[in-house]
Amino acid sequence: MSQRQVLQGNIIVAKAALAAGCDFFAGYPITPSSEIAQHMSKEMPKLGRVFIQMEDEIASLGACIGASLAGRKTLTATSGPGFSLMQEHIGFAVMAEVPLVIVNVMRGGPSTGMPTKPAQSDVMQARWGTHGDHPAIVLAPAFSDELFSETVRAFNLAEKYWNPVVLLLDEVIAKAHEDIEVPVDECVDVFCREPNRIEDLNIYDRKLGEQPPRVDFFEGYPIHVDGLEHDAHGWPSFEAKTVDKMQQLRMEKVYQHLDDIIRFKEYELDDAEVMIFAYGVSARSALAAVKLARQQGIRAGLFQPLTVWPFPDAPLMERMKRIKKVLTVEMNMGQLALEVDRVATPDVQRRALLRVNGNPFTPAEVLAALKEF
Amino acid sequence: MSQRQVLQGNIIVAKAALAAGCDFFAGYPITPSSEIAQHMSKEMPKLGRVFIQMEDEIASLGACIGASLAGRKTLTATSGPGFSLMQEHIGFAVMAEVPLVIVNVMRGGPSTGMPTKPAQSDVMQARWGTHGDHPAIVLAPAFSDELFSETVRAFNLAEKYWNPVVLLLDEVIAKAHEDIEVPVDECVDVFCREPNRIEDLNIYDRKLGEQPPRVDFFEGYPIHVDGLEHDAHGWPSFEAKTVDKMQQLRMEKVYQHLDDIIRFKEYELDDAEVMIFAYGVSARSALAAVKLARQQGIRAGLFQPLTVWPFPDAPLMERMKRIKKVLTVEMNMGQLALEVDRVATPDVQRRALLRVNGNPFTPAEVLAALKEF
Amino acid sequence: MSQRQVLQGNIIVAKAALAAGCDFFAGYPITPSSEIAQHMSKEMPKLGRVFIQMEDEIASLGACIGASLAGRKTLTATSGPGFSLMQEHIGFAVMAEVPLVIVNVMRGGPSTGMPTKPAQSDVMQARWGTHGDHPAIVLAPAFSDELFSETVRAFNLAEKYWNPVVLLLDEVIAKAHEDIEVPVDECVDVFCREPNRIEDLNIYDRKLGEQPPRVDFFEGYPIHVDGLEHDAHGWPSFEAKTVDKMQQLRMEKVYQHLDDIIRFKEYELDDAEVMIFAYGVSARSALAAVKLARQQGIRAGLFQPLTVWPFPDAPLMERMKRIKKVLTVEMNMGQLALEVDRVATPDVQRRALLRVNGNPFTPAEVLAALKEF
Amino acid sequence: MSQRQVLQGNIIVAKAALAAGCDFFAGYPITPSSEIAQHMSKEMPKLGRVFIQMEDEIASLGACIGASLAGRKTLTATSGPGFSLMQEHIGFAVMAEVPLVIVNVMRGGPSTGMPTKPAQSDVMQARWGTHGDHPAIVLAPAFSDELFSETVRAFNLAEKYWNPVVLLLDEVIAKAHEDIEVPVDECVDVFCREPNRIEDLNIYDRKLGEQPPRVDFFEGYPIHVDGLEHDAHGWPSFEAKTVDKMQQLRMEKVYQHLDDIIRFKEYELDDAEVMIFAYGVSARSALAAVKLARQQGIRAGLFQPLTVWPFPDAPLMERMKRIKKVLTVEMNMGQLALEVDRVATPDVQRRALLRVNGNPFTPAEVLAALKEF
Repeated sequence: MSQRQVLQGNIIVAKAALAAGCDFFAGYPITPSSEIAQHMSKEMPKLGRVFIQMEDEIASLGACIGASLAGRKTLTATSGPGFSLMQEHIGFAVMAEVPLVIVNVMRGGPSTGMPTKPAQSDVMQARWGTHGDHPAIVLAPAFSDELFSETVRAFNLAEKYWNPVVLLLDEVIAKAHEDIEVPVDECVDVFCREPNRIEDLNIYDRKLGEQPPRVDFFEGYPIHVDGLEHDAHGWPSFEAKTVDKMQQLRMEKVYQHLDDIIRFKEYELDDAEVMIFAYGVSARSALAAVKLARQQGIRAGLFQPLTVWPFPDAPLMERMKRIKKVLTVEMNMGQLALEVDRVATPDVQRRALLRVNGNPFTPAEVLAALKEF
Repeated sequence: MSQRQVLQGNIIVAKAALAAGCDFFAGYPITPSSEIAQHMSKEMPKLGRVFIQMEDEIASLGACIGASLAGRKTLTATSGPGFSLMQEHIGFAVMAEVPLVIVNVMRGGPSTGMPTKPAQSDVMQARWGTHGDHPAIVLAPAFSDELFSETVRAFNLAEKYWNPVVLLLDEVIAKAHEDIEVPVDECVDVFCREPNRIEDLNIYDRKLGEQPPRVDFFEGYPIHVDGLEHDAHGWPSFEAKTVDKMQQLRMEKVYQHLDDIIRFKEYELDDAEVMIFAYGVSARSALAAVKLARQQGIRAGLFQPLTVWPFPDAPLMERMKRIKKVLTVEMNMGQLALEVDRVATPDVQRRALLRVNGNPFTPAEVLAALKEF
Repeated sequence: MSQRQVLQGNIIVAKAALAAGCDFFAGYPITPSSEIAQHMSKEMPKLGRVFIQMEDEIASLGACIGASLAGRKTLTATSGPGFSLMQEHIGFAVMAEVPLVIVNVMRGGPSTGMPTKPAQSDVMQARWGTHGDHPAIVLAPAFSDELFSETVRAFNLAEKYWNPVVLLLDEVIAKAHEDIEVPVDECVDVFCREPNRIEDLNIYDRKLGEQPPRVDFFEGYPIHVDGLEHDAHGWPSFEAKTVDKMQQLRMEKVYQHLDDIIRFKEYELDDAEVMIFAYGVSARSALAAVKLARQQGIRAGLFQPLTVWPFPDAPLMERMKRIKKVLTVEMNMGQLALEVDRVATPDVQRRALLRVNGNPFTPAEVLAALKEF
Repeated sequence: MSQRQVLQGNIIVAKAALAAGCDFFAGYPITPSSEIAQHMSKEMPKLGRVFIQMEDEIASLGACIGASLAGRKTLTATSGPGFSLMQEHIGFAVMAEVPLVIVNVMRGGPSTGMPTKPAQSDVMQARWGTHGDHPAIVLAPAFSDELFSETVRAFNLAEKYWNPVVLLLDEVIAKAHEDIEVPVDECVDVFCREPNRIEDLNIYDRKLGEQPPRVDFFEGYPIHVDGLEHDAHGWPSFEAKTVDKMQQLRMEKVYQHLDDIIRFKEYELDDAEVMIFAYGVSARSALAAVKLARQQGIRAGLFQPLTVWPFPDAPLMERMKRIKKVLTVEMNMGQLALEVDRVATPDVQRRALLRVNGNPFTPAEVLAALKEF
């Protein structure tokens, strides 16, 4: 069941977060993400949930980390400069295995850049922005229904895999008002963590691919949360064997579950000769371009990743076998195009349609690129 | 001319920075980089140069940016957590085209990780850590003489290309005491920016590949420094054509000068069948392993990039033509290995020897990996 | 009309603030004042008013100043350490003539002191804590009904006299649960500022004793708010004549209205030989002691100031004429006792019952002091 | 022995601090005190002493507290707004009994006020600015030689009485360049604390009037430094008896040594009918006025306190017996005039010559006031 509404993208995300059970939001407003905070500031108190505006983005993510450790489902929302400020705390959240969701509405960068214009230039940062090896789960919805479903999924993945999840939007899909069927709460599939009751807690003693046993604070368990490596009992450790294991544990809890985490859409790929790889606002233009191309007899199709990190190597490699050309379309100077290059089989021709001037590609521009290819 | 000395790696860097004309250091101490700040705090006042300890890493880079704009050659030194905190200001420095040098002594991550153990896990972060598309110049010396020469080169590249330059060390090479011939100042080749005297200043009006005309403050020129995009006259602009041009200008001033920026070393590659790709501490073990391998009749060689960003695509592709296998050795879970994959021709077999437990590879371990390959 | 309730002192203050029209609260929690923030955080959103927790006390008062300038009735609540941190902003509020109310629930000091114990040791600080000459309006209720009425009066005085008003409580009266008749909103006499509509605004051009004409922001008036001195037109000025005038204006708008501002209570003073001077929790014990004394034939009375600053020189001097002895009772090492000394006529004997160990005086102790006098 | 020089007041203070052994300065520059920091930043590194600019005044005093606890003689210098920001940390320094010296160069207030104009409006704040009962030692030199001698004395008193000492200057005496005989270091009488070697350390177990036994850190003693009250063994305590004792100990270590702490000068008071009470810049005009008055046959004299807190009750009362009138001259709206009122015997007429417009009184103005009296 659902309700048909015309809503701004940011508001769809906020509503989806509430539907997913988000009960703590800390943030510092920044264009073009501010409507998320604004909506939360009004709606959360009515629901007995907590909204707090912090003094900056570092404090915002800090508050989210604390709230998550205390059992809350937490969200923050920001844009490029704020996302850069959050990088150190993101590493802490990965290390301490803290579930939380960060929305980054991408705008023109670097630095202040163009606050009111869209971009897709933070995709590599979302993978590599914090120091040290770390897993990243990053989702990039393109269409209004995906804004809802991927937001819910972001919370579910955070809770299942004990990791921060980044939701990458861009200024266009965040700011546009669109028709959407908003599911009623009962129809939203929500995953909730359940604190464990454990006889003999060894918080870091687990097998590859397993999630950490998480117990409630103040229940008598020895819990030691910090940014260091730990042995099975939770004591800080620099022992090589232990560190090795923990580094693997953090990675494998994600990489052993790619089937659950990686989601993508494909359009007209069955008989396609040329495949467009596009996500976010660019996927919108690309889909329209595919339709135009087909009308003109061009056998084009679209691969649209919803999960951009982990990168969908396997499904993409699979599709590469059947096509001759791949055209990556993104609003940056070539970021996921590098990944497509890496994954591509040698006989597939690669080209990228890139732009980073604040104007999204039109379907006609994508079509033109298809034809010139 | 030079003086033979036994010095710690961090001290070599500090001495090289002074030799390169560094006259402003702002930093916040963090293991394993602190000796750089310590040395500077003692030596700079004696030379009439400025050392200041700031309240954190964000303020430190902020101070460096301000000092650089005022004409100073500036340095800061940090490690992973501090480097993550600096990401937003790094983007500002790229955008405002501010020359400065950042030393990141890599230690075990993510988060606090292992402060006293080495890692090479911030290599991708050094390329992608700040939001928005941006050029990155990142140097990774391995041997003691390179610590000196690459530090000087970092300052020269910063001054020539109006961009922040990152010097990536690791805990081993930063902390080890080594024999080194320290060049006397007169023998150090230093590049100094010269403020322009311009009749009709159009600060952003330049051709692709050109450096910005930089004038002194307080000389009557209209200078507007901020994190926005600008038109030719320096006014903030969101106009697509202008933004396009500026994004290209920032990139091309680096990418049109790869011959000057990219530097690497190669050992025994002429007749090699298997090539090791390694940098920093891992290059030390790799070089020793190559020597051992040759003694055993294995035709191994080493490609050691000194410039890791921009990635040395061209020279590497060139060498790929002649070899059968490439073994990437790095102290992380696979970072530049991804780049090697991307660049490799399809017929070259790829493998990576990776570890991130705080222990560098021994030559024997690298040799064993060569043999198993 | 009113409702009989048992409420904690802090809650009475919060309810009174809401009744007085307080529509903005910014604060940082600190024992023993936190219940005020807690109550506001729950009730204000329901009323469409704004509650925000800030990162510290400096930011809290900063937010209140901004909100007040934008037309809000603002409150913050703190205790000693927070009050000390606020001193610089208090001076700004005095200088820029910003109406707002600060609750300081006094606890044992100095520094962290005894967070859960009462004191009356910030009375002189409330007068002199910020630098420069400045007027101070400080109220010190003692009984539960006064907690309500003086809170309302604090808002009214702030709005009438364009000055910060401090409400000094102590841990006992703030934490005790007491029976109180809470007036319904319609029965609360609230003073509201009305922004002026002025043809030719000269914001600082006024006569001694007059309040500043205050206009709304964004209505086209030239408004310049800062911490400097200003001439009649609002321009910063260091001219001696102007500064002289402004210093007088700020003082006289308070000191020409002492009849309106100074409020006190007196018990059994008509025929008293010995007068107790006491406020806050000490007034409670003192009143009980007066009753006990009268039962024993001792002609004691109580002077209880509700306004402690401006100090009630005139009424106190008047009463001094009729008595022989004055006993100041306060939970500090002698603060208002200095003022009583200053005001006392030479033939009146003075003594002070002082204590600062966290225990309020009992009525028996006050009675004993009366007898020993 | 000494050297004759023409120096700015601030520089005299800086030189005196160095002569007194000051080996740590932390500060944030503010007019009209900045030359002290400037001088220290240049001279301290040459002497192997530590200068650090901090991010604000709170951090500055925090750094001084830490350095003092670690055995350094520490100084910070500021003006009104910075002094207000320091109030919380001043309370900590009192509570933890930390010797340090704070220079406050008074300028026009409140708030930003008139940064380049003198005032004497922070005198009461220097006594009462932080919350809770606390002793205050505050010195207010007037003449150039006193700038030197009182600065040295400030350090000596801090070290002897384990308390922060405030040196109150005003913009005139801080900024004026004057002829002074600077004593050579050997001729400066410096008091140095000596860490105790104690068999059985009970840090707070001492008699009224005694200084605390202070031991070095890292010598094996249990030292617990915080803002709470403590029992004899150093454990935090809220026990009434303990707190009582500690509050007395902190006060009495100052008040039992008034003979050592209180210093003043007197001119022509032997046969005076009218006594001027003045300090700082006003004492300069007052002394000139006394000379003019004597020339005209008026029996005027001057009482010039060098120690303003503790207030010199006893010597002033003594002089009150012999005079008929007292004229307080100060650049504020009546601050120490309140104290003179309090101390004055009833038959002495009191009047105050007050001004707070940035212009010091001329000798002629003081003389006129004497005549009108």
